[in-house]
Amino acid sequence: MTLKLYAFPTPNGLKVSVLLELLGLKYEYHSVDIRTNVQKEDWFLALNPNGRIPTLVDSSTNTTLSESGAILQYLVDTYDKEHKFSYPYGSSLYYKQLEVLLFQMAGVGPMQGQFGHFSIFAQEKVPYGIERYGAETKRLYSVVELYLERNKENGLYLVGDRVTIADIAIFTWARGLERLGVDIKQWPLVSKWFDSIDALPEVQKGLNPV
Amino acid sequence: MTLKLYAFPTPNGLKVSVLLELLGLKYEYHSVDIRTNVQKEDWFLALNPNGRIPTLVDSSTNTTLSESGAILQYLVDTYDKEHKFSYPYGSSLYYKQLEVLLFQMAGVGPMQGQFGHFSIFAQEKVPYGIERYGAETKRLYSVVELYLERNKENGLYLVGDRVTIADIAIFTWARGLERLGVDIKQWPLVSKWFDSIDALPEVQKGLNPV
Repeated sequence: MTLKLYAFPTPNGLKVSVLLELLGLKYEYHSVDIRTNVQKEDWFLALNPNGRIPTLVDSSTNTTLSESGAILQYLVDTYDKEHKFSYPYGSSLYYKQLEVLLFQMAGVGPMQGQFGHFSIFAQEKVPYGIERYGAETKRLYSVVELYLERNKENGLYLVGDRVTIADIAIFTWARGLERLGVDIKQWPLVSKWFDSIDALPEVQKGLNPV
Repeated sequence: MTLKLYAFPTPNGLKVSVLLELLGLKYEYHSVDIRTNVQKEDWFLALNPNGRIPTLVDSSTNTTLSESGAILQYLVDTYDKEHKFSYPYGSSLYYKQLEVLLFQMAGVGPMQGQFGHFSIFAQEKVPYGIERYGAETKRLYSVVELYLERNKENGLYLVGDRVTIADIAIFTWARGLERLGVDIKQWPLVSKWFDSIDALPEVQKGLNPV
Protein backbone atom coordinates (compact mmCIF):
# COMPACT_ATOMS: atom_id res chain seq x y z
CA MET A 1 0.00 0.00 0.00
CA THR A 2 1.68 3.24 -1.06
CA LEU A 3 -0.64 5.60 0.88
CA LYS A 4 -0.59 5.73 4.68
CA LEU A 5 -2.87 8.06 6.61
CA TYR A 6 -2.02 8.85 10.23
CA ALA A 7 -5.14 10.33 11.76
CA PHE A 8 -7.92 10.25 14.28
CA PRO A 9 -11.66 10.73 13.65
CA THR A 10 -11.65 14.51 14.16
CA PRO A 11 -12.92 16.92 11.48
CA ASN A 12 -9.36 17.44 10.20
CA GLY A 13 -8.60 13.73 10.16
CA LEU A 14 -11.89 12.73 8.56
CA LYS A 15 -11.69 15.20 5.70
CA VAL A 16 -8.71 13.25 4.38
CA SER A 17 -10.30 9.78 4.66
CA VAL A 18 -13.48 11.15 3.05
CA LEU A 19 -11.51 12.45 0.07
CA LEU A 20 -9.50 9.22 -0.21
CA GLU A 21 -12.77 7.26 -0.44
CA LEU A 22 -14.29 9.67 -2.97
CA LEU A 23 -11.16 9.30 -5.10
CA GLY A 24 -11.41 5.51 -4.80
CA LEU A 25 -7.87 5.24 -3.42
CA LYS A 26 -6.67 2.40 -1.23
CA TYR A 27 -4.80 3.43 1.91
CA GLU A 28 -3.55 2.12 5.21
CA TYR A 29 -5.23 3.85 8.13
CA HIS A 30 -3.09 4.36 11.22
CA SER A 31 -5.07 5.53 14.22
CA VAL A 32 -3.16 8.14 16.26
CA ASP A 33 -5.05 8.43 19.53
CA ILE A 34 -4.96 12.12 20.43
CA ARG A 35 -6.77 11.41 23.73
CA THR A 36 -3.55 9.83 24.97
CA ASN A 37 -1.27 12.28 23.13
CA VAL A 38 0.17 9.72 20.72
CA GLN A 39 0.71 12.63 18.29
CA LYS A 40 3.36 14.00 20.66
CA GLU A 41 5.43 10.80 20.61
CA ASP A 42 8.85 10.93 18.97
CA TRP A 43 7.98 8.58 16.09
CA PHE A 44 5.09 10.86 15.09
CA LEU A 45 7.04 14.12 15.62
CA ALA A 46 9.54 12.76 13.11
CA LEU A 47 6.70 12.79 10.56
CA ASN A 48 5.26 16.12 11.71
CA PRO A 49 7.25 18.39 14.05
CA ASN A 50 3.98 20.19 14.89
CA GLY A 51 2.62 17.08 16.60
CA ARG A 52 -0.86 17.35 15.08
CA ILE A 53 -2.86 14.92 12.97
CA PRO A 54 -3.44 14.22 10.10
CA THR A 55 -0.25 13.29 8.28
CA LEU A 56 -0.14 11.50 4.92
CA VAL A 57 2.77 9.43 3.68
CA ASP A 58 2.80 8.62 -0.04
CA SER A 59 5.73 6.34 -0.79
CA SER A 60 5.03 6.48 -4.54
CA THR A 61 6.11 10.14 -4.61
CA ASN A 62 8.32 10.15 -1.51
CA THR A 63 5.96 12.61 0.18
CA THR A 64 5.31 13.13 3.89
CA LEU A 65 2.75 15.87 4.33
CA SER A 66 0.83 17.46 7.20
CA GLU A 67 -1.84 20.19 7.51
CA SER A 68 -5.13 18.75 6.31
CA GLY A 69 -5.72 21.48 3.69
CA ALA A 70 -2.31 20.82 2.13
CA ILE A 71 -3.03 17.08 2.08
CA LEU A 72 -6.37 17.61 0.30
CA GLN A 73 -4.71 19.82 -2.30
CA TYR A 74 -1.88 17.31 -2.77
CA LEU A 75 -4.31 14.42 -3.23
CA VAL A 76 -6.41 16.11 -5.92
CA ASP A 77 -3.30 17.47 -7.68
CA THR A 78 -1.86 13.95 -7.78
CA TYR A 79 -4.86 11.65 -8.08
CA ASP A 80 -7.77 13.70 -9.46
CA LYS A 81 -6.53 14.26 -13.00
CA GLU A 82 -10.13 14.20 -14.27
CA HIS A 83 -11.10 16.93 -11.80
CA LYS A 84 -14.05 15.17 -10.26
CA PHE A 85 -13.46 16.88 -6.90
CA SER A 86 -11.30 19.85 -7.90
CA TYR A 87 -10.58 22.39 -10.64
CA PRO A 88 -7.57 22.61 -12.95
CA TYR A 89 -4.50 24.38 -11.56
CA GLY A 90 -4.43 28.07 -12.36
CA SER A 91 -8.09 28.36 -13.35
CA SER A 92 -10.39 30.93 -11.83
CA LEU A 93 -12.37 28.23 -9.99
CA TYR A 94 -9.12 26.74 -8.69
CA TYR A 95 -8.45 29.95 -6.77
CA LYS A 96 -12.04 30.20 -5.48
CA GLN A 97 -11.63 26.62 -4.25
CA LEU A 98 -8.35 27.57 -2.55
CA GLU A 99 -9.97 30.66 -1.02
CA VAL A 100 -12.80 28.64 0.55
CA LEU A 101 -10.39 25.89 1.62
CA LEU A 102 -8.30 28.50 3.44
CA PHE A 103 -11.43 30.11 4.89
CA GLN A 104 -12.04 26.71 6.48
CA MET A 105 -8.42 26.22 7.58
CA ALA A 106 -7.96 29.72 9.02
CA GLY A 107 -11.52 30.46 10.14
CA VAL A 108 -14.03 27.65 10.62
CA GLY A 109 -11.51 25.11 11.95
CA PRO A 110 -9.68 27.21 14.53
CA MET A 111 -12.76 29.11 15.72
CA GLN A 112 -15.13 26.14 15.95
CA GLY A 113 -12.25 24.25 17.54
CA GLN A 114 -12.00 26.90 20.26
CA PHE A 115 -15.77 26.84 20.72
CA GLY A 116 -15.51 23.09 21.27
CA HIS A 117 -12.71 23.62 23.75
CA PHE A 118 -14.57 26.16 25.86
CA SER A 119 -17.98 24.51 25.69
CA ILE A 120 -16.98 20.84 26.06
CA PHE A 121 -13.36 20.20 26.98
CA ALA A 122 -12.15 23.06 29.24
CA GLN A 123 -11.70 22.06 32.90
CA GLU A 124 -12.88 25.51 33.93
CA LYS A 125 -16.10 27.20 32.82
CA VAL A 126 -15.13 30.41 31.04
CA PRO A 127 -18.28 32.20 29.81
CA TYR A 128 -16.24 34.77 27.85
CA GLY A 129 -14.71 32.02 25.71
CA ILE A 130 -18.00 30.18 25.16
CA GLU A 131 -19.67 33.42 24.06
CA ARG A 132 -16.79 34.65 21.89
CA TYR A 133 -16.22 31.46 19.91
CA GLY A 134 -19.88 30.50 19.75
CA ALA A 135 -20.68 33.85 18.13
CA GLU A 136 -17.76 33.63 15.70
CA THR A 137 -18.60 30.04 14.72
CA LYS A 138 -22.17 31.07 13.90
CA ARG A 139 -20.96 34.09 11.96
CA LEU A 140 -18.68 31.86 9.89
CA TYR A 141 -21.50 29.47 8.94
CA SER A 142 -23.59 32.48 7.93
CA VAL A 143 -20.72 33.25 5.52
CA VAL A 144 -20.89 29.64 4.25
CA GLU A 145 -24.59 30.33 3.60
CA LEU A 146 -23.56 33.39 1.54
CA TYR A 147 -21.02 31.33 -0.43
CA LEU A 148 -23.79 28.83 -1.29
CA GLU A 149 -26.17 31.66 -2.16
CA ARG A 150 -23.65 33.31 -4.49
CA ASN A 151 -23.05 30.00 -6.30
CA LYS A 152 -26.71 28.85 -6.34
CA GLU A 153 -27.10 28.98 -10.11
CA ASN A 154 -24.44 26.24 -10.43
CA GLY A 155 -25.99 23.90 -7.86
CA LEU A 156 -25.64 23.33 -4.14
CA TYR A 157 -21.85 23.56 -4.01
CA LEU A 158 -19.46 26.05 -2.46
CA VAL A 159 -17.51 26.60 -5.68
CA GLY A 160 -18.64 25.80 -9.22
CA ASP A 161 -20.66 22.76 -10.28
CA ARG A 162 -19.32 19.92 -8.15
CA VAL A 163 -18.34 18.78 -4.67
CA THR A 164 -14.70 19.83 -4.25
CA ILE A 165 -12.11 19.73 -1.50
CA ALA A 166 -13.55 23.07 -0.30
CA ASP A 167 -16.92 21.40 0.40
CA ILE A 168 -15.30 18.36 2.02
CA ALA A 169 -13.19 20.54 4.31
CA ILE A 170 -16.20 22.43 5.66
CA PHE A 171 -18.50 19.38 5.68
CA THR A 172 -16.54 17.46 8.32
CA TRP A 173 -16.59 20.53 10.57
CA ALA A 174 -20.31 21.17 9.99
CA ARG A 175 -20.86 17.62 11.20
CA GLY A 176 -19.66 18.72 14.64
CA LEU A 177 -22.23 21.52 15.03
CA GLU A 178 -24.92 19.32 16.56
CA ARG A 179 -22.71 18.25 19.46
CA LEU A 180 -22.06 21.95 20.13
CA GLY A 181 -25.78 22.63 20.34
CA VAL A 182 -25.83 24.65 17.12
CA ASP A 183 -28.84 23.95 14.88
CA ILE A 184 -27.64 23.79 11.27
CA LYS A 185 -31.22 24.38 10.07
CA GLN A 186 -30.87 28.09 10.82
CA TRP A 187 -28.91 28.22 7.54
CA PRO A 188 -31.27 26.65 4.98
CA LEU A 189 -28.73 26.25 2.19
CA VAL A 190 -25.99 24.94 4.50
CA SER A 191 -28.44 22.41 5.90
CA LYS A 192 -29.45 21.10 2.44
CA TRP A 193 -25.86 21.15 1.21
CA PHE A 194 -24.78 19.17 4.29
CA ASP A 195 -27.45 16.51 3.75
CA SER A 196 -26.52 16.09 0.08
CA ILE A 197 -22.87 15.39 0.93
CA ASP A 198 -23.72 13.25 3.93
CA ALA A 199 -25.85 11.04 1.64
CA LEU A 200 -22.89 9.94 -0.49
CA PRO A 201 -21.85 6.34 0.34
CA GLU A 202 -18.14 7.11 -0.16
CA VAL A 203 -18.46 9.93 2.37
CA GLN A 204 -20.02 7.58 4.91
CA LYS A 205 -17.19 5.14 4.34
CA GLY A 206 -14.61 7.91 4.81
CA LEU A 207 -16.29 8.98 8.06
CA ASN A 208 -15.64 5.52 9.48
CA PRO A 209 -12.01 4.81 8.61
CA VAL A 210 -10.58 1.42 9.50
CA MET B 1 -3.00 49.76 -12.47
CA THR B 2 -4.28 46.19 -12.79
CA LEU B 3 -3.58 45.12 -9.18
CA LYS B 4 -5.57 46.55 -6.28
CA LEU B 5 -4.90 45.50 -2.70
CA TYR B 6 -7.57 46.18 -0.08
CA ALA B 7 -5.87 45.81 3.27
CA PHE B 8 -4.78 47.27 6.58
CA PRO B 9 -1.34 47.00 8.21
CA THR B 10 -2.05 43.80 10.14
CA PRO B 11 0.11 40.67 9.73
CA ASN B 12 -2.33 39.25 7.15
CA GLY B 13 -2.51 42.51 5.23
CA LEU B 14 1.22 43.13 5.30
CA LYS B 15 2.23 39.70 4.05
CA VAL B 16 0.60 40.58 0.73
CA SER B 17 2.22 44.01 0.33
CA VAL B 18 5.59 42.51 1.30
CA LEU B 19 5.28 39.87 -1.42
CA LEU B 20 4.10 42.44 -3.99
CA GLU B 21 7.23 44.51 -3.29
CA LEU B 22 9.53 41.48 -3.44
CA LEU B 23 8.00 40.57 -6.81
CA GLY B 24 8.51 44.15 -8.01
CA LEU B 25 4.82 44.54 -8.88
CA LYS B 26 3.02 47.87 -8.99
CA TYR B 27 -0.31 47.99 -7.15
CA GLU B 28 -2.89 50.38 -5.85
CA TYR B 29 -3.17 50.20 -2.07
CA HIS B 30 -6.64 50.77 -0.62
CA SER B 31 -6.62 51.16 3.14
CA VAL B 32 -9.60 49.42 4.78
CA ASP B 33 -9.70 50.71 8.34
CA ILE B 34 -10.66 47.73 10.47
CA ARG B 35 -10.71 49.93 13.60
CA THR B 36 -13.92 51.49 12.26
CA ASN B 37 -15.20 48.24 10.69
CA VAL B 38 -14.91 49.39 7.10
CA GLN B 39 -14.45 45.70 6.17
CA LYS B 40 -18.08 45.11 7.18
CA GLU B 41 -19.45 47.76 4.77
CA ASP B 42 -21.54 46.58 1.83
CA TRP B 43 -19.05 47.61 -0.84
CA PHE B 44 -16.35 45.47 0.78
CA LEU B 45 -18.65 42.52 1.53
CA ALA B 46 -19.36 42.43 -2.22
CA LEU B 47 -15.62 41.70 -2.67
CA ASN B 48 -15.39 39.31 0.31
CA PRO B 49 -18.55 37.97 1.99
CA ASN B 50 -16.42 37.08 5.02
CA GLY B 51 -15.74 40.76 5.75
CA ARG B 52 -12.05 40.31 6.47
CA ILE B 53 -8.97 41.89 4.91
CA PRO B 54 -6.92 41.42 2.76
CA THR B 55 -8.60 41.14 -0.64
CA LEU B 56 -6.76 41.37 -3.95
CA VAL B 57 -8.35 42.40 -7.24
CA ASP B 58 -6.38 41.61 -10.39
CA SER B 59 -8.23 43.01 -13.39
CA SER B 60 -5.74 41.43 -15.81
CA THR B 61 -7.06 37.96 -14.92
CA ASN B 62 -10.55 38.95 -13.70
CA THR B 63 -9.67 37.71 -10.22
CA THR B 64 -11.08 38.83 -6.86
CA LEU B 65 -9.46 36.83 -4.09
CA SER B 66 -9.47 36.78 -0.30
CA GLU B 67 -7.68 34.77 2.42
CA SER B 68 -4.09 35.96 2.61
CA GLY B 69 -2.59 32.50 2.04
CA ALA B 70 -4.60 32.05 -1.15
CA ILE B 71 -3.52 35.49 -2.34
CA LEU B 72 0.17 34.69 -1.76
CA GLN B 73 -0.17 31.42 -3.68
CA TYR B 74 -2.05 33.17 -6.51
CA LEU B 75 0.60 35.89 -6.80
CA VAL B 76 3.55 33.50 -7.06
CA ASP B 77 1.66 31.19 -9.44
CA THR B 78 0.90 34.15 -11.68
CA TYR B 79 3.89 36.47 -11.32
CA ASP B 80 6.81 34.41 -10.04
CA LYS B 81 7.51 32.32 -13.11
CA GLU B 82 11.22 32.29 -12.26
CA HIS B 83 10.45 30.91 -8.77
CA LYS B 84 12.40 33.51 -6.84
CA PHE B 85 9.98 33.24 -3.89
CA SER B 86 8.30 29.90 -4.54
CA TYR B 87 8.78 26.39 -5.93
CA PRO B 88 7.37 24.89 -9.13
CA TYR B 89 3.84 23.50 -8.94
CA GLY B 90 3.74 19.82 -8.06
CA SER B 91 7.33 19.58 -6.82
CA SER B 92 8.21 18.15 -3.45
CA LEU B 93 9.28 21.59 -2.15
CA TYR B 94 6.02 23.08 -3.44
CA TYR B 95 4.09 20.88 -1.00
CA LYS B 96 6.45 21.61 1.89
CA GLN B 97 5.91 25.31 1.15
CA LEU B 98 2.13 24.74 1.16
CA GLU B 99 2.36 22.77 4.41
CA VAL B 100 4.21 25.57 6.21
CA LEU B 101 1.93 28.23 4.66
CA LEU B 102 -1.09 26.34 6.04
CA PHE B 103 0.65 25.86 9.39
CA GLN B 104 0.76 29.67 9.53
CA MET B 105 -2.82 30.13 8.31
CA ALA B 106 -4.37 27.50 10.58
CA GLY B 107 -2.02 27.72 13.54
CA VAL B 108 0.22 30.74 14.05
CA GLY B 109 -2.30 33.28 12.72
CA PRO B 110 -5.43 32.23 14.60
CA MET B 111 -3.64 31.34 17.85
CA GLN B 112 -1.38 34.41 18.02
CA GLY B 113 -4.43 36.43 16.99
CA GLN B 114 -6.35 35.11 20.00
CA PHE B 115 -3.37 35.80 22.25
CA GLY B 116 -3.43 39.39 21.00
CA HIS B 117 -7.14 39.60 21.66
CA PHE B 118 -6.93 38.36 25.25
CA SER B 119 -3.76 40.19 26.18
CA ILE B 120 -4.35 43.56 24.47
CA PHE B 121 -7.83 44.09 23.05
CA ALA B 122 -10.35 42.27 25.30
CA GLN B 123 -12.49 44.61 27.44
CA GLU B 124 -12.43 42.05 30.23
CA LYS B 125 -9.33 40.45 31.74
CA VAL B 126 -9.62 36.69 31.18
CA PRO B 127 -6.51 34.94 32.60
CA TYR B 128 -7.55 31.58 31.11
CA GLY B 129 -7.45 33.03 27.59
CA ILE B 130 -4.15 34.85 28.09
CA GLU B 131 -2.55 31.67 29.46
CA ARG B 132 -4.03 29.32 26.83
CA TYR B 133 -3.13 31.34 23.75
CA GLY B 134 0.19 32.58 25.11
CA ALA B 135 1.30 28.98 25.65
CA GLU B 136 0.08 27.84 22.23
CA THR B 137 1.73 30.80 20.46
CA LYS B 138 5.05 29.95 22.09
CA ARG B 139 4.66 26.28 21.23
CA LEU B 140 4.04 27.18 17.59
CA TYR B 141 7.22 29.29 17.35
CA SER B 142 9.15 26.40 18.88
CA VAL B 143 7.85 24.38 15.90
CA VAL B 144 9.08 27.15 13.55
CA GLU B 145 12.48 26.69 15.23
CA LEU B 146 12.29 22.95 14.40
CA TYR B 147 11.38 23.71 10.77
CA LEU B 148 14.48 25.95 10.52
CA GLU B 149 16.60 23.32 12.24
CA ARG B 150 15.45 20.57 9.85
CA ASN B 151 16.25 22.75 6.83
CA LYS B 152 19.53 24.23 8.19
CA GLU B 153 21.79 22.62 5.59
CA ASN B 154 20.00 24.65 2.87
CA GLY B 155 20.30 28.00 4.65
CA LEU B 156 18.17 29.99 7.06
CA TYR B 157 14.84 29.38 5.32
CA LEU B 158 11.72 27.48 6.28
CA VAL B 159 11.65 25.45 3.08
CA GLY B 160 14.51 24.86 0.65
CA ASP B 161 17.13 27.40 -0.36
CA ARG B 162 15.25 30.69 -0.60
CA VAL B 163 12.76 33.05 1.07
CA THR B 164 9.33 31.82 -0.05
CA ILE B 165 5.72 32.72 0.67
CA ALA B 166 5.95 30.37 3.68
CA ASP B 167 8.65 32.56 5.24
CA ILE B 168 6.81 35.79 4.39
CA ALA B 169 3.58 34.51 5.94
CA ILE B 170 5.23 33.71 9.27
CA PHE B 171 7.54 36.73 9.22
CA THR B 172 4.74 39.33 9.42
CA TRP B 173 3.27 37.47 12.41
CA ALA B 174 6.66 37.10 14.12
CA ARG B 175 6.94 40.87 13.87
CA GLY B 176 4.02 41.14 16.32
CA LEU B 177 5.66 39.06 19.06
CA GLU B 178 7.44 42.01 20.69
CA ARG B 179 4.19 43.88 21.32
CA LEU B 180 2.87 40.74 23.01
CA GLY B 181 5.85 40.65 25.34
CA VAL B 182 7.30 37.51 23.76
CA ASP B 183 11.08 37.57 23.32
CA ILE B 184 11.94 36.10 19.91
CA LYS B 185 15.53 35.51 21.08
CA GLN B 186 14.39 32.40 22.99
CA TRP B 187 14.37 30.72 19.55
CA PRO B 188 17.89 31.38 18.19
CA LEU B 189 17.21 30.29 14.61
CA VAL B 190 13.85 32.10 14.42
CA SER B 191 15.53 35.25 15.69
CA LYS B 192 18.32 35.16 13.08
CA TRP B 193 15.87 34.19 10.33
CA PHE B 194 13.62 37.10 11.29
CA ASP B 195 16.48 39.61 11.17
CA SER B 196 17.61 38.39 7.75
CA ILE B 197 14.17 38.93 6.23
CA ASP B 198 13.61 42.20 8.06
CA ALA B 199 16.85 43.51 6.51
CA LEU B 200 15.56 43.29 2.93
CA PRO B 201 14.68 46.77 1.56
CA GLU B 202 11.66 45.42 -0.39
CA VAL B 203 10.33 43.93 2.83
CA GLN B 204 10.63 47.27 4.59
CA LYS B 205 8.80 48.93 1.72
CA GLY B 206 6.04 46.31 1.89
CA LEU B 207 5.69 46.87 5.63
CA ASN B 208 4.82 50.49 4.96
CA PRO B 209 2.25 50.36 2.17
CA VAL B 210 0.97 53.63 0.71
